[in-house]
Amino acid sequence: MTSPSAIKWSAQQLQLLDQRILPARIEYLSYSEPFAVAEAIRNMVVRGAPAIGITAAYGMVLAAQQLTSTPASVAAWCQALSAARSALANSRPTAVNLFWALERCDRVIEEQGNGGNVLGALTALAENIHAEDIKLNQRIGDFGASLIPANSVVYTHCNAGALATGGYGTALGVIRSAYRDGNIRGVIAGETRPWLQGARLTSWELIQDGIPVTLAIEGAAAHLMREQKPSWIIVGADRVAANGDAANKIGTYNLAIIAKYHGVKVMVAAPTSTFDANIDGEKIPIEQRPGEEISHSFGQRIAPENINIANPAFDVTPAALIDAIVTEHGIIHAPNRDKVLAHLRAAADS
Amino acid sequence: MTSPSAIKWSAQQLQLLDQRILPARIEYLSYSEPFAVAEAIRNMVVRGAPAIGITAAYGMVLAAQQLTSTPASVAAWCQALSAARSALANSRPTAVNLFWALERCDRVIEEQGNGGNVLGALTALAENIHAEDIKLNQRIGDFGASLIPANSVVYTHCNAGALATGGYGTALGVIRSAYRDGNIRGVIAGETRPWLQGARLTSWELIQDGIPVTLAIEGAAAHLMREQKPSWIIVGADRVAANGDAANKIGTYNLAIIAKYHGVKVMVAAPTSTFDANIDGEKIPIEQRPGEEISHSFGQRIAPENINIANPAFDVTPAALIDAIVTEHGIIHAPNRDKVLAHLRAAADS
Repeated sequence: MTSPSAIKWSAQQLQLLDQRILPARIEYLSYSEPFAVAEAIRNMVVRGAPAIGITAAYGMVLAAQQLTSTPASVAAWCQALSAARSALANSRPTAVNLFWALERCDRVIEEQGNGGNVLGALTALAENIHAEDIKLNQRIGDFGASLIPANSVVYTHCNAGALATGGYGTALGVIRSAYRDGNIRGVIAGETRPWLQGARLTSWELIQDGIPVTLAIEGAAAHLMREQKPSWIIVGADRVAANGDAANKIGTYNLAIIAKYHGVKVMVAAPTSTFDANIDGEKIPIEQRPGEEISHSFGQRIAPENINIANPAFDVTPAALIDAIVTEHGIIHAPNRDKVLAHLRAAADS
Repeated sequence: MTSPSAIKWSAQQLQLLDQRILPARIEYLSYSEPFAVAEAIRNMVVRGAPAIGITAAYGMVLAAQQLTSTPASVAAWCQALSAARSALANSRPTAVNLFWALERCDRVIEEQGNGGNVLGALTALAENIHAEDIKLNQRIGDFGASLIPANSVVYTHCNAGALATGGYGTALGVIRSAYRDGNIRGVIAGETRPWLQGARLTSWELIQDGIPVTLAIEGAAAHLMREQKPSWIIVGADRVAANGDAANKIGTYNLAIIAKYHGVKVMVAAPTSTFDANIDGEKIPIEQRPGEEISHSFGQRIAPENINIANPAFDVTPAALIDAIVTEHGIIHAPNRDKVLAHLRAAADS
C-alpha cells in the first residue's frame, strides 16, 4: 500500500486530502472556487511546499472555470483572475513554490490573451505541474540516495513526503530510494510540534511502505543522534535562498546545529521550483501562526490563560550547516551562492 | 499570588498536588501508605528531582506510621520498611535526590535502632528535608542571579520551579531572584513534550509571579536564540555527575548545543543533593517511558497504530557545554571533575 494522493483533480473539481485529521481518517474535501482553496492552504488542509504550488495552480483553474461558466467582460475576467491570484498568493508567505506556480499561471494567461483558451491552458498547466512534480521527486530521490551509505539510520523532520508533494516526496523520496537500494536500516521521525506532521504523516507514510520508523519528540534529537548515530538528517525545504540557506519547518535549524555537533550530515531535498534566486536566507519572510496552535492542542487548552506564545512556522538553516542540497538536476555539495546560482543556470539550460 | 506547594504534610497524611492536570485544575491527592506514593512518583503526580526526594522521605514516614499503628515484630518492621524503601527507590531511576533522601532515611532508622522512635525521627527528617529545600533554593537563586546581566532574556526548559521542589525552585529560583533584582526582561519557556511541563507548569508559575514569559515549542529554540539573543539558558538537573555532566529533562542537551552555537551561556541550577560523586555522565541510567505518552497525547491517538516510539525521559549534557553549575554553596564555573569534587568536599565541610 502506498500513501493516498494529497491532491486529486477530476470532473472539474479539486479534491484535497484533509491532512489535519490524518491518520485517524482519510477524507477528501472538494473545492470548486479559488477562495476556498486559498483558505484550505492557510488552514493546512494541504501543506508542503510542492503540494501548495500544485494546489495554487488548480486554484487558478477553478477561477477560470467560474468565469467560463458565467459570461463576463474582459475587464471582469482580468479582475476576477487577479482577485483569485491575490487570495492564493496571500495564503502562506514562506513557501516559494506557491509564487512559482502562480507566475507560471500568469504567463499562460498572458500568452492566451483575450481570445485564447485560458481555462484549457491553465488546466493543462496545473496537470503538468502536478505530473512533473512526481517525476522530479523520483529524480531527487535517486540523486539523494546515492549519498546514503549502507546500513544507515537517517533522521527526518516534519513531512516532506508523498503528502507534501505531487507524490513520492522530497526528503521521503530520498529515503524511499535509499530503502529500495537496501541502505536504510531505520528512520527516526521527529513528531514536529505543533501540527505533528512527523507523528501523523511521516510515520504513517513510512509504515505503509514497510520502511522501519521510530517516532520521537523534537527534544530527543541530540540524545538520539548520540545513541543511534544517523548518517544523515534529510529534510525538505519551503524556500532555498540564493546564498544556499534553506527555510523549512520550524525545528530544522535545531537539527542542523545538533547534527553538526555530532558529525551527522545534513541534506536538503527540494526541486528547483523551491529556489528563490532573489533573496538571501535572512530576508525570507517567516510565517507567524496563531498561538492557539500551541496552547489549544487537540481541542484542549494545555497552557494558562493569557499566555504569550511565539509560533514561528519555519526557520532558516544557514548554508554553512548544510552538506548537500539535492534537486531534480543533481547535488550541490557544501552549498554557497556561487554553486546555487550555477546550479540554477545549468537547470535553466537543460 | 505564588504557586501552591507541590507537597503538603498534615494530620499524618501526605498530600500531593496533581501536576498532571495543572493548570486546568488545582487538586491534591492524599496518601497514607508508601506504595501508593511510589506509584504517584512513577505516574508523575509529583515530579522534579528535589520534590521527588522530599516525597520519598514522606513515603518512608507513612511506612513507619503504618507499622506503629499495627503491633509488629522487629523482623516484620525491618521487612516492611525495606519493602517500602524498595518500591520508592524503583519508582524512577534517573533523579538521584530520591536515593539521597532514602539514604538519609536509612541512617535515621539505623540510629534509632529497635528501641528508638523511628516514626518520630523519620517525620522530623522528612519535614527537615522539605523545609531545608526551600532555603537551599533561595540560596541557589541568589547565587545564580549574580550571573545574570541587566536587561536579560533567559530561556528555560521543563519545570525546575516551585512545583519541582519544596518551593521557590532551582532554575526558576534563579529567574525569580534575577527578576527581583530587575535584570530579567523576559523568559522563554519551552513547552517540553511529551508532558508539557513548560506549557502547563513553568508558564503558570511565572504568570502568577508576574514575570513576563513567552511559551514556544522545542523546535523553535534555535530560531528564538538567533532572534531574541537570550543571555542564559537556565535549567535544573536530575543528576549532576562527578565529571560535571548533567542529566535533565529530555531536550536539555539539544538546548545546550544550540546555545553554544549562538554564544548563549548554559546554567544548571541544582542543590548538592542532586550530585552523584560515584558516577560519570555516560553511566547515568536514562529512564525510558511508555511510548503512549507520545502517541496518545491529550486523550487522543496522534500517531499510527503499531508505531515504534523512542521516549527517553532525560538526556545528559556534557560538562563542556555547561558554563556554570549553581548550588546552595556557590558557583562552579566551567565545571569539570576536579571542580565538582572540590565543591562537594567544601560543601561537606561547611
